[in-house]
Amino acid sequence: MKLPGQEEFDVYSAHENVTTGELDSGPGSGPGPDGSSDTGVPKDPLLFIQLNELLGWPQALEWRETGRWVLFEEKLEMGGGRWSAPHVPTLALPSLQKLRSLLMEGLVLLDCPAQSLLELVEQVTRVESLSPELRGQLQSLLLQRPQHLIQTTRTRPCWGSARPREASRDEEALLKEQRLNSLRQKLPPGAEAGAVLAGELGFLAQPLGAFVRLRDPVVLGPITEVPLPSRFFCLLLGPPTLGRSYHEMGRAMAVLLSDPQFQWSVRRACNLYDLLAALDAFLEEVTVLPPGRWDPTARIPPPKCLPSQHKRLPSQMQEVKGPSARRCGSPAEDRHGHPPQAPSPELQRMGRLFGGLVQDVRRKALWYPSDFLDALHPQCFSAVLYIYLATITNAITFGGLLGEATDGAQGVLESFLGTAVAGAAFCLMAGQPLTILSSTGPVLVFERLLFSFSRDYSLDYLPFRLWVGIWVATFCLVLVATEASVLVRYFTRFTEEGFCALISLIFIYDAVGKMLSLTRAYPIQRPGSPAYGCFCQYPDPAGNESQWTRTKPKDRDDLLSTDLGLVNASLLPPPECVRQGGHPRGPGCHTVPDIAFFSLLLFLASFLFAMAFKHVKTSRFFPSVVRKVLSDFSSVLAILLGCGLDAFLGLATPKLTVPREFKKGAGFHLDLFCVALLLLLTSALGLPWYVSATVISLAHMDSLRRESRACALGEPPSFLGIREQRLTGLVVFILTGISIFLAPILKFIPMPVLYGIFLYMGVAAISSIQFTKRVQLLLMPAKHQPDLLLLRHVPLSRVHLFTAIQLACLGLLWIIKSTPAAIIFPIMLLGLVGVRKALEWVFSPQELLWLDELMPEKEGSTPEKGLEPEYSFSGSDSEDSELMYQPKAPEINISVN
Amino acid sequence: MKLPGQEEFDVYSAHENVTTGELDSGPGSGPGPDGSSDTGVPKDPLLFIQLNELLGWPQALEWRETGRWVLFEEKLEMGGGRWSAPHVPTLALPSLQKLRSLLMEGLVLLDCPAQSLLELVEQVTRVESLSPELRGQLQSLLLQRPQHLIQTTRTRPCWGSARPREASRDEEALLKEQRLNSLRQKLPPGAEAGAVLAGELGFLAQPLGAFVRLRDPVVLGPITEVPLPSRFFCLLLGPPTLGRSYHEMGRAMAVLLSDPQFQWSVRRACNLYDLLAALDAFLEEVTVLPPGRWDPTARIPPPKCLPSQHKRLPSQMQEVKGPSARRCGSPAEDRHGHPPQAPSPELQRMGRLFGGLVQDVRRKALWYPSDFLDALHPQCFSAVLYIYLATITNAITFGGLLGEATDGAQGVLESFLGTAVAGAAFCLMAGQPLTILSSTGPVLVFERLLFSFSRDYSLDYLPFRLWVGIWVATFCLVLVATEASVLVRYFTRFTEEGFCALISLIFIYDAVGKMLSLTRAYPIQRPGSPAYGCFCQYPDPAGNESQWTRTKPKDRDDLLSTDLGLVNASLLPPPECVRQGGHPRGPGCHTVPDIAFFSLLLFLASFLFAMAFKHVKTSRFFPSVVRKVLSDFSSVLAILLGCGLDAFLGLATPKLTVPREFKKGAGFHLDLFCVALLLLLTSALGLPWYVSATVISLAHMDSLRRESRACALGEPPSFLGIREQRLTGLVVFILTGISIFLAPILKFIPMPVLYGIFLYMGVAAISSIQFTKRVQLLLMPAKHQPDLLLLRHVPLSRVHLFTAIQLACLGLLWIIKSTPAAIIFPIMLLGLVGVRKALEWVFSPQELLWLDELMPEKEGSTPEKGLEPEYSFSGSDSEDSELMYQPKAPEINISVN
Repeated sequence: MKLPGQEEFDVYSAHENVTTGELDSGPGSGPGPDGSSDTGVPKDPLLFIQLNELLGWPQALEWRETGRWVLFEEKLEMGGGRWSAPHVPTLALPSLQKLRSLLMEGLVLLDCPAQSLLELVEQVTRVESLSPELRGQLQSLLLQRPQHLIQTTRTRPCWGSARPREASRDEEALLKEQRLNSLRQKLPPGAEAGAVLAGELGFLAQPLGAFVRLRDPVVLGPITEVPLPSRFFCLLLGPPTLGRSYHEMGRAMAVLLSDPQFQWSVRRACNLYDLLAALDAFLEEVTVLPPGRWDPTARIPPPKCLPSQHKRLPSQMQEVKGPSARRCGSPAEDRHGHPPQAPSPELQRMGRLFGGLVQDVRRKALWYPSDFLDALHPQCFSAVLYIYLATITNAITFGGLLGEATDGAQGVLESFLGTAVAGAAFCLMAGQPLTILSSTGPVLVFERLLFSFSRDYSLDYLPFRLWVGIWVATFCLVLVATEASVLVRYFTRFTEEGFCALISLIFIYDAVGKMLSLTRAYPIQRPGSPAYGCFCQYPDPAGNESQWTRTKPKDRDDLLSTDLGLVNASLLPPPECVRQGGHPRGPGCHTVPDIAFFSLLLFLASFLFAMAFKHVKTSRFFPSVVRKVLSDFSSVLAILLGCGLDAFLGLATPKLTVPREFKKGAGFHLDLFCVALLLLLTSALGLPWYVSATVISLAHMDSLRRESRACALGEPPSFLGIREQRLTGLVVFILTGISIFLAPILKFIPMPVLYGIFLYMGVAAISSIQFTKRVQLLLMPAKHQPDLLLLRHVPLSRVHLFTAIQLACLGLLWIIKSTPAAIIFPIMLLGLVGVRKALEWVFSPQELLWLDELMPEKEGSTPEKGLEPEYSFSGSDSEDSELMYQPKAPEINISVN
Repeated sequence: MKLPGQEEFDVYSAHENVTTGELDSGPGSGPGPDGSSDTGVPKDPLLFIQLNELLGWPQALEWRETGRWVLFEEKLEMGGGRWSAPHVPTLALPSLQKLRSLLMEGLVLLDCPAQSLLELVEQVTRVESLSPELRGQLQSLLLQRPQHLIQTTRTRPCWGSARPREASRDEEALLKEQRLNSLRQKLPPGAEAGAVLAGELGFLAQPLGAFVRLRDPVVLGPITEVPLPSRFFCLLLGPPTLGRSYHEMGRAMAVLLSDPQFQWSVRRACNLYDLLAALDAFLEEVTVLPPGRWDPTARIPPPKCLPSQHKRLPSQMQEVKGPSARRCGSPAEDRHGHPPQAPSPELQRMGRLFGGLVQDVRRKALWYPSDFLDALHPQCFSAVLYIYLATITNAITFGGLLGEATDGAQGVLESFLGTAVAGAAFCLMAGQPLTILSSTGPVLVFERLLFSFSRDYSLDYLPFRLWVGIWVATFCLVLVATEASVLVRYFTRFTEEGFCALISLIFIYDAVGKMLSLTRAYPIQRPGSPAYGCFCQYPDPAGNESQWTRTKPKDRDDLLSTDLGLVNASLLPPPECVRQGGHPRGPGCHTVPDIAFFSLLLFLASFLFAMAFKHVKTSRFFPSVVRKVLSDFSSVLAILLGCGLDAFLGLATPKLTVPREFKKGAGFHLDLFCVALLLLLTSALGLPWYVSATVISLAHMDSLRRESRACALGEPPSFLGIREQRLTGLVVFILTGISIFLAPILKFIPMPVLYGIFLYMGVAAISSIQFTKRVQLLLMPAKHQPDLLLLRHVPLSRVHLFTAIQLACLGLLWIIKSTPAAIIFPIMLLGLVGVRKALEWVFSPQELLWLDELMPEKEGSTPEKGLEPEYSFSGSDSEDSELMYQPKAPEINISVN
């Protein structure tokens, strides 16, 4: 079970052991914007391209930066004085053609040895067609300092070199500004610049085009807004024309230079013809939008993931690209990061008793020392705080509910201590130390089942539970010995989502049910309901009770209309009355008004707060840091707000009951022993069975992720790896153990708030699975349905049939859960695998590939690259990359929380 | 004040008098997909283009329809067995170039006289390069019936002619299917078809291309899925190639044919060279997306409005386009449908006393008889029901609040009767009979101010109100006489939005305030609060009161702890006690528990229900009819749900108090006389001053709108006009008058529900204005801000300054409203105009043009087409059409509701 937003972690859910040393080798050597990573072969540096335009002809000629490119285009909003949001550049075809002819006729200098702007300008203007006088004018124009809109790290943008004609004392200020430019921090070290200068110049008789590749990249003074060494220089000048054709040609040149394939070719071009060939190759591959159906000035936001450059790049360049290049998902890969037909080596059966365990231990032992040393990084300290808060929130929520589900009020403390001991042991020994343990959903369900079973059959709960634990441990040991973990391969999405949906529904049902039972415990007083009267009765001075009745009432209604003959009585409220030695009497004494509706309000408020905080992440408001904090701590904040609201009104809502000391003694220690034993086995199996908290574990990994800092201009930051170590988890669990002393604080948490969080978790989990999307399809008219990939390949009626079967399975599971047969709950999972197997008789493999995924038996019979589409003429090449518009299939972990 | 979704009405907010006769002339002659309307000159028919592809080479050759175009492309999802959603077609440049050379070498028949498919096939295959045997094979292949995925009006799609090789008894079934095709109903009469046949054929040695324009369009048998006469026929066959190049060429041909300009040219082409020139002209204007930054297989959803074809089309074609063509808004036009510098003739001063009134009457008198005859259309009957419900909802909400705001409980009845009389009079006499009258927000505010003023100064309310009414009427008369309506031009968006924001805030403040005062009236019982005790005290048989106290209590606390010495007392609840002749005694007797929180729940629930129902319109669920009903009746449904919830629990929540008869007699009639007088003047002014309900009026117009039925394939339905008449409004108001007999039902409406609707109206109105968007910008980091047009042209700091000034004005207005100076409330509007005038000293005209709009004084000094952008080199041509990405500026009416 997982929450929205978890999809982004899929790419590294099977995280590899990457040492921090490897990861710390600096972003320059990390993956570039095209996702290529270093595998030894030196790769081309990143190129920052800037378009300087000549404006103000004829009165006040000046160069101004009007566009810049790394991956996407940013346009200068002249009026707004700001850079536009990065967008996909669009060009007009004629401007590309004009550029081509200008280059063909113009000057092309490849490996120009110029060492400064002055030398470069001299080289470029050494054209026959120019008279010496014109050349002089042109040179001085080219040496003029351009204006940049520099957004420094300070808040306000400013126009760089606002007085372009002033003397050299400006020089320093400019250089300082260049260096302070916040853009520079976003570009990786080693990045090069490409400068495109374009404009209309009245004194030119004919167009002047020059393309220069510098042999050694050199900082060309103030030409670029960031002091990067320039590799390319392109000059496009000509007499005034209609429209802004030189501007458009300059943009075309910049877009060409920002294209990875063109850039690759032009870095290796030997002559003009190589350059033109690269341009033609670009034209071969452009996408064309018809003029009548598309506004050419529309700005297209950057797509979520870029098309693979794999097919486009020449073979040499492909070698450079490492295996970890981040590409769009393909149908065979999107779930595990590898094709499902080729299971990972960890899930290959060894064929010996305990073979898998031995191999796991061998594999992991190598990394053990570094698992502690890698934690010495400041990032780990903030991770500890964050994960600690999330863990105790979880422990409070589930512990509170667990205690209530069984018979004790012990839940929270047990949850704290259990989590701490088990988690610490796990961190020290397990194969996947970033997994955070907690008593979560399935544990709760299972405990409740055990409890009700023991009650139904008059068994003593704790010994019964111990025996179940011992049996489970034995089974686990057998599973480890026989390497049964490889069977995980048979759990397809069908099974996982069915189970996830069931757990989510139990969450929702329980939350709402408990809320409703709370309103029964604190009934609402309707008009005329006989719950008003209550008075306080004292013993009379002689110690006798006051005269209670003149006539003995027979039932409650009688009591109401009975004449009272009281002497020693007052209207003190019940608690006060008791304190003064009296007895509250009357039908209204045990009624607490207002609690039912206030609890409902608290319940709804904490649910809505949690939902709202979770969604803050995708809002436009506040800086991203604030949004991330609000979203990550959504449950904690919702609980705090709920508690605050409750404390503000001071009503006697039902609170979390926390005992002052541990009552259940021996049983608890046996419990823990059992948990520890189970954990040992579980961790040896590498199977996150029933105590791993998926969401928190993913948050843990997220807080430890390493991303490229060079995420300029619309590109999403690329993922470098995770600081995998054992220390953060260990510290978190030690802190959790210490938290049992929090008990005096915990009694301020109202139960309705916890129910609200419970509801939120259920709703968030159920809305994240593909099954829910398919259920929604049942309610949507065909033409309003989203463009899901599976709808392109499977007829709607078959999709609905698959959904209906899943719904039927869910109904059956629910019925089983509600009967005494519920004790076989864990076996249901296997039943789902059987149903899934039977579905192969109903659906074709193609349909199952899109609706679910293939089971491993088909391994041999299907081609490695996935099944061919149903119609051979529907070439797979045109469909592959459409996958980027499919919302990524969420990965469901069997251990939900 | 307006609600979200109102923007769509802007284009016709100044609705013209179009007779129904004109509008009923059939969609065929109405605006085509390019928005051109009939102005006498015959226009080119709509073209439906279908791509049939030859599949299954070499074993099982068959033609299958794989794509279709009207405005946008629909692709056949082979696997899914459905048509894709319409999307912007994208092409590869090489396929266009290959198509060009194939056409150049191939056969081009213009004005071919073929009368059937057989004749056409004979003509097309009469190519030298083909041997007679090959020709025969080809002819039989071309005559083979293609397979179509036909979506009939019945729900399930079916494959047309599933047995393609079968005999003529299939023929009829096919024709039937063709006729049942739901697509056919969406295409206007007179539409023509274009058929593109493409594919790879192994026995051809060289490519075979043919382009045919038929002299007389003829139904080419089963070639197209709809039995339309075909005008164009294109055949693109060749030997098998790598990739799907013939498929792509076929798509390119289809996209070309769907382009309006290419279509125009090719309909008039005389030879091959005209055809090639049209193709080259198309290429000149295409938008190019670079390969590395855009996935060519991505499907782009249709843009909200298409780029103007105005610039692209040849002059002859431009003449055809009428003035009502629906284009994207431009900065100077987007508010009033005409440039603000040229006020409409209605707002031109005549220069004579009562000149405007005389001209209004003259203008409207012509249409008077048709205003009643036009109502004889079934659409009007459904409009009556809808608007009636909306009107009484409004009357109940505001009437209830009005009654409470002043001193009587008369509000709702008064509101019903006032609305009915005033509305009926208005419908019969006013210049804009589709305006629905109601006592809404500003009336409420004004009435409350008058009431509190009269109370503060101990004036008798009704006479005072009458005098105010008479004064207002006198002023109105003066305004009419001096043609002051032209001053409306000075109310820019700054003024309107300032006023709208103030009214919305008053709504929100009042709703929340009243809700809070309700919780004070029904206090929450905290633990220990002394509100528990209550008992019932009877007189003793001798008629004496029961012995109350042994010791006299001094204050309440004393009472509580006093020993009671009661004899004749019971614990009956207070109402029962009173019924039995007793007296409820004790501090708890007047407390009604649970009401406060339940009222809060009702308040929140009705607010959230109304919000949710309103947003159903844009959801993907349910058919559009259901969504429209849910969204349109959101307030009614929210009130009904709130009442249902209240009735279900049966608590004594405060209800709407409705008197059984009219108490205020004479005053009421005087009132009405005043209202009627004012209405007369208001209607003569054409100024929807204070009793027009904008939202309902717009809904009224919406329910009467005429749309083109031919809205196939992704094109939004185009708006034809409104059935303007006086009858629907009249019937609605008569029904409203009858509704005073609803009083017995109205007393079931809880007040918190009305407060919730009140809050919803305030929130919906304030979130619809540009001012709110700018306030939100204050909280957004610059890089997350939406791509608003004003941000492209005005520096952020200036935008913030403008917003801050507006906020300051709002604060000032709020302060004035809260003091005795509030009586000058209507004058504030003029104050805002003054502030706006002063802003011209702070902001440049360019900035004001983007932030607000220009005031009419600037009429002479600014060019008609709007101000030139600040920098002359930023050519306006590249910015104009970017406007389609600007959320349309909402039109704020001063008469909010």
